[in-house]
Formats: sequence, C-alpha cells, structure tokens
Amino acid sequence: MSEKAENPPQKNSPQENPPQVWRNVRLATLAPGLPGLGVVERGALAIRDGRIAFAGAEAELPGAALAGAEIVDGEGRWITPGLIDCHTHLVWAGDRAHEFELRLAGASYEEVARAGGGIVSSVAALRAASEDDLVRQTLPRLDALLAEGVTTVEVKSGYGLDLASERKALRAARRLAQERPVAIRTTFLGAHALPPEAGGDKDAFIAEVADAMLPALAAEGLIDAVDAFCEGIAFSPDQVARVFARAGSLGLPVKLHADQLSNLGGAALAARHNALSADHLEHTDEAGAAAMAANGTVAVLLPGAYYFIRETKLPPVALFRRHGVRIAVATDANPGTSPLTSLLLAMNMAATLFRLTVDECLAGTTREAARALGILSETGTLEAGKRADLAVWSIERPAELVYRMGFNPLHARIRGTR
Amino acid sequence: MSEKAENPPQKNSPQENPPQVWRNVRLATLAPGLPGLGVVERGALAIRDGRIAFAGAEAELPGAALAGAEIVDGEGRWITPGLIDCHTHLVWAGDRAHEFELRLAGASYEEVARAGGGIVSSVAALRAASEDDLVRQTLPRLDALLAEGVTTVEVKSGYGLDLASERKALRAARRLAQERPVAIRTTFLGAHALPPEAGGDKDAFIAEVADAMLPALAAEGLIDAVDAFCEGIAFSPDQVARVFARAGSLGLPVKLHADQLSNLGGAALAARHNALSADHLEHTDEAGAAAMAANGTVAVLLPGAYYFIRETKLPPVALFRRHGVRIAVATDANPGTSPLTSLLLAMNMAATLFRLTVDECLAGTTREAARALGILSETGTLEAGKRADLAVWSIERPAELVYRMGFNPLHARIRGTR
Ligand SMILES: [Zn+2]
Ligand SMILES: [Zn+2]
Repeated sequence: MSEKAENPPQKNSPQENPPQVWRNVRLATLAPGLPGLGVVERGALAIRDGRIAFAGAEAELPGAALAGAEIVDGEGRWITPGLIDCHTHLVWAGDRAHEFELRLAGASYEEVARAGGGIVSSVAALRAASEDDLVRQTLPRLDALLAEGVTTVEVKSGYGLDLASERKALRAARRLAQERPVAIRTTFLGAHALPPEAGGDKDAFIAEVADAMLPALAAEGLIDAVDAFCEGIAFSPDQVARVFARAGSLGLPVKLHADQLSNLGGAALAARHNALSADHLEHTDEAGAAAMAANGTVAVLLPGAYYFIRETKLPPVALFRRHGVRIAVATDANPGTSPLTSLLLAMNMAATLFRLTVDECLAGTTREAARALGILSETGTLEAGKRADLAVWSIERPAELVYRMGFNPLHARIRGTR
Repeated sequence: MSEKAENPPQKNSPQENPPQVWRNVRLATLAPGLPGLGVVERGALAIRDGRIAFAGAEAELPGAALAGAEIVDGEGRWITPGLIDCHTHLVWAGDRAHEFELRLAGASYEEVARAGGGIVSSVAALRAASEDDLVRQTLPRLDALLAEGVTTVEVKSGYGLDLASERKALRAARRLAQERPVAIRTTFLGAHALPPEAGGDKDAFIAEVADAMLPALAAEGLIDAVDAFCEGIAFSPDQVARVFARAGSLGLPVKLHADQLSNLGGAALAARHNALSADHLEHTDEAGAAAMAANGTVAVLLPGAYYFIRETKLPPVALFRRHGVRIAVATDANPGTSPLTSLLLAMNMAATLFRLTVDECLAGTTREAARALGILSETGTLEAGKRADLAVWSIERPAELVYRMGFNPLHARIRGTR
C-alpha cells in the first residue's frame, strides 16, 4: 500500500472568517496584563469579521458573540496566538545539502568553496531562478511552518545582492501571502554579503545598497523593514549605520544580525537606531543588553543556527532577563546555517540549548515575535480586536509544545482574514 | 479558515500489495555488495506478492516484472529501504512535559521527584493505563514516525516492571502492527529500573525478571529480543549477565543499554553474549569496540538522548570505524530523556552532533538498523526477495534527508505485506 505524504496546496481565500465561537477551550492569551502565559482555564474565544471579538472566561462570554456564530466544542484543547516566525531567509533556490555532505566527509572550507559551496552558491542559484521558481521552491518550506500553526512569517532578501534579484526575492516573498493563508513581512537584507562582482569593495557595495536598491525597492512597497549583517566576514558598524540612516530617512524600521560570531557592538548599534530587534547575539555584552532594554529592541534568539554550526558560545540570556530585554525565538530558516523549518523545534532548541523557560519560548514565538516585527497591535496575543490568528492544539499543557521533538499536535490553524 | 492537522488512521490492510513497477527512479539500495549507498541512477523497482521482485537498472528490468503490474513513473525521485527505528520505548502513558518545565524553571532533581517526576512517574502512569489506553496514546507517536517513511519499529517494555504490566505493554506494542501498516519488533526490558515496591533489592528484582517474567512472556510469544540497562543507576554487569543467561537458554537474542553515563564495560559484556546491539555507548572504550567488532554487535547511537540531556561525552565513532563496528541510528523515543518521534531528525543529530557521514546516517536507519534487530534477511536493503518495505522521496540527493531539520520530503511509503 502506498500513502501520499503531500497535502493539496491551499489558496489564500478572499472570504472572511465566518463568525465562530470556540467554547470549552483553554487559552494561553499572552495578554500583557496577565502573568506568565496569561492562561484562562474554562475559556472561550469568539471570532467575527476576521478579528478576535472575545477571548476570556467562558462564563463571561457576551451573548452578542453567539449571534449567528458557529459554535465549536474545543473539548478542552488549548488555543494560543498563531505562531510567528520572526526571522527567516525562506525564499532561496537550490539547497546546500551537498556542501553539508562534503563537510561531514571531512572537506575543508576551501574544498567546499571549490565545489561551489558557500553563500555564493545561494546567490548564484537565486539569480538564476525565476520569480515563479522561487515561489514554487519556497512553498513546501512555508507549508512545513504553517502545518505547525504559524500564521505570520518574516522573510528576508539577501541572496540577490543586485537590484533586480533583490526585487525578485521580495516579490516572491509577497506572493507567498497570495498562495497561502499567511501574513508575510518582508525585510530587505541587501547588506547580507558582498557579491562576487563587487571586487571586494564593501564601501561601494554599501553605497549601492543604501542609495540605489533601498530607495527603489521601498518606493515599490516591497520593504517592511531593513536588516544588515554586522560581522567581520560581512559589514562593519559604520557600513551598517549608513544603511540604517537611509532606512530612517525613508521611515523604515531596522533590525540587525548582531554579535553572532564576535562582538562588534552590534546590539548597541541596533539599539541606537531604535531597531525592532537585534538577532543572534551570542557575543553580546552587558552594555549591549542595557542599550537594547533602554530602546525596546527585542533579542531574537536563533538556536537552529547555533546548533547547526556547532557554536559553543551561548547568548547571554541571564543578562537579557536582568535588564528586561524582551526575547523572541525564530527558525532563521536558511540553506547555509539553519535549514530548519519547524518553529516547534526552534522552541525545543531554545529551551534545551539556551535554557529558556517554557513561558519564554511560547512568548518568544507569539507576543515577542510580533513585537520584533512591529506588528504587536495586530497579532501575537489573544485579545479582542486583534486579527484572528490562532493555533488550536491537542495537548494537555503548553509545555508539550516545547518538550517534544519532531511531533506536531496541531488540531487547527486559523488565520484572520483582516 | 480552519485546517485539520490530523490524518485519518489507516488500518493495516490484509490485502497483498498489487504488482507494481516503479520506473524512472533513483535507488539507494544499501546492498552490501555495492559501495556507499549502493546507488542506482536510472533505476527501477518491481513489487510482487509483497516482496521486491527486482531492484536495479531500468535497462535490466526483466519483462516478466511488468506482467499485470501497475507502472508508476517515479519522475526521478529517490527510493530507499523503508526506514527502521531500531531503539524506541514508544509505548508509554502520560508525558513528562511538566518535569521538563520544572527543570527549565530551575527545579532540582529532588524537587522534580517530589512533584512526581522521573521514571517512577512513567511506571505509575503505565500501570494505571489499560492496554487500549496504551495503544491509543501510542498511535499518534507511531504515526509521526510512519509519516517519515518508517516501516519497522522496535518497541521496548520497561515501564511496567511487574509481570502483568510488562505483558500489557508488550501486547500493546504487538497491537500497533494491527492498527497500522508497520512491522513491530518487541523487546523485553524488564531490567530497566527498580520498581518502588522492590524496596531497593536489585538482586531479588533481577531474579524476578530472569526467572519469572522473562520465561512467562517468552512462552506467550511476546518477546523478540531481551534488553537491559547496565548503569550505576540501574543494574550491574553481573545482574545483566543473569538476565542474558536466561535469554540465551530461551533462544532469545539480547541487546544492551550500555556505557551511556559511565563505563561499566557494557559494550564488551554485550559482545560476550553475542548481542545484536549495544546502544548509547558514549563511554565505550577501545576494548569494548574491539569486542563488538569481533562478535558482530551493532553500535546503536541515540543522539536524541545525547541532545536532550545535554550530554557532552561523544560516542567513540572513530573507534567504531577503525574496528569495523557497524553503526545504527535510532530515536530512543521515550518520555524522560528523548521525547523524539522523528527518525529524520535523529539522522540530522547524528550528523551534526556525532559527525556521522550522510552514508552512515542512511545505512544506520536502514541496513544497520535491520542488522541491529536481527531482521536483515527480511528488510533493510533494496534487494530482490526482501519484503517490499520502501520509502519514496521527493529529493534531489540522499543528503537532503540528513541535512534538513523539521522537513519531511516523503512522497510515498510502501509496506510489504508479507
Ligand atoms: Zn538570519
Ligand atoms: Zn533506550
């Protein structure tokens, strides 16, 4: 006997959510006024016009919420905000499995590079692919995320590294939201790596990114935020600051790949520019953490990359806690250093490897992930008025979402239509 | 909009596989005569009467294979042997998510124990559950494995620790093979832990295991192999030897949880008893590896447990290679130290954490896993005459199965019916 593993693709429906009331459910609201996960036992949740009309104790459910609504018995299941993957490079072409295989077989970085590996190979593959190709290759990865209750995905460019290719990647990212019921936030990461044709001139390439690509793509409405990679192997703080200044003048929020492999003061740099988030942060020091806290910059932790590249320096979670820095968790889905398309597994890694608590992991993929994308007013918690982005889980307690590895207890995913 | 994540359960069909020929496929045969994965590009595979009738170059496909057969165009996909998870404790009741949560929140082992955690809690939960409960609770975990192309699963007892409860667990394990299209191999692990009622008397409990439980359950046909946990916190080499001696007198093969937390000479002990496998092996020394090689005892590596308990001592892979010890990889699925139900993720962990090569990972979940269960003549490779247990993958190269994390490229799973 033969069983198909593939699911039929689902188009994003233009229809609104019908009025619906989930009763007999337990809620992890993540509402800011409540302690921990903002749990409501014996809860109910009402959806109307694609928005959460009520989320709270079933005993307090207003009669108006029931009018014309489908009533669903949740049978004691848990409802959380739809999960948010707030740091991905999901639109890529080809894969780097062969490079992985060569490395395991003992090949040096030089041998891998000679065999066509490294980020240059992802740049070449993306440039060679059509926009349709990119959408087609990305959808299976997106579907893996959605199957685990994800309702919002951030997608970065940065494998194009010329205007046309960056545009193609960002357009492909936007199209994902037509192909599937998901919200996509696009981030322009032109300052990701130096392309081969730049001849080693980082300053000239940064000028191109800041003065040509960024304004052009912003004018086309393709950019929700601007990111850069601040690292010895990538761009200096001064080069990053130049990109951020331009983003600021265009009214675009910024984020930063900061302090992953060394401490160049990336966290503090991001905070100075009121960045939504600084991401990775293995080498961030106390001054960086304090600056992030002072400026409301979220720490986005990426344990998939830490695991995959066998990093040993842990991000300073205790410092973040002490200074009150908000913590988010994401997959960093990318072909080179984190071919991870499970946000549940990212949570397990954040707990197992970084010792985040269950509450921190769940807040980190809902409320804090929304904050890291600047969309907390729209999604990320179960509060009346927010978009009805929900995940319904067949679990006895939220800790199961973090504890298990390679198991998906999702019962239903609901994506608010407006 | 709402999407169900659950799949309808599939009963094990009594029907035979209809004759079928997959053409235009690439085969990783794992056949012992061929190098590496035994790859056949431009391959074909014929199934008749639930067995592999042909696996090789499409140009050499005999005409007789086509008679009356359904012809399937594989469109260049890869076929591997159905995956084999050769070390699990899949039949358990309850979960230990709360214990995980307490530990992350900083609770000590004593506090966890006072809150009802530890293996004792799994024993209590299993004893309280009915056989039907156990089957019902286990099926979602089994389904997670099967969804990734697994066709054979080993299941250990060891949370019952009295005759009736061990019987119940083994019967539940056997029933899984009626509920789903999968082969189940049962392993009696009475010598897993000391139950509370034993009052600390390990020798008396081992006598009960070896002289009462083991012969009774063997007589009922519930045991395919016998396992024990050789460790300071569990049973001594002498106690294990007593169980093994009884297994030998009953004609049952043995396996051993060996050298996980310390070196008690478990690998050599297993080898002396011609064990099918010794499992874990983080602390195995060269004498142990040499003994395993001399006796054909397979090294079963369990990176999920290594990862989950944050072990730092790596198993001596280089020693195993040097001595020619065969290496298998399994999930060790269990609620306490490896709540892992993805064999693909186990492969990724074996590569990332233990530096196994792609070929070692794939051989370790097919051919070598079959060897570790003593069923290599039946399954584990794509060779004419073996059971038609197959996995068909939508991938460009086998390395993708190891490289990706949280992604399932299975196209179809075929389970030979006899
Ligand atoms: Zn990144
Ligand atoms: Zn085990």
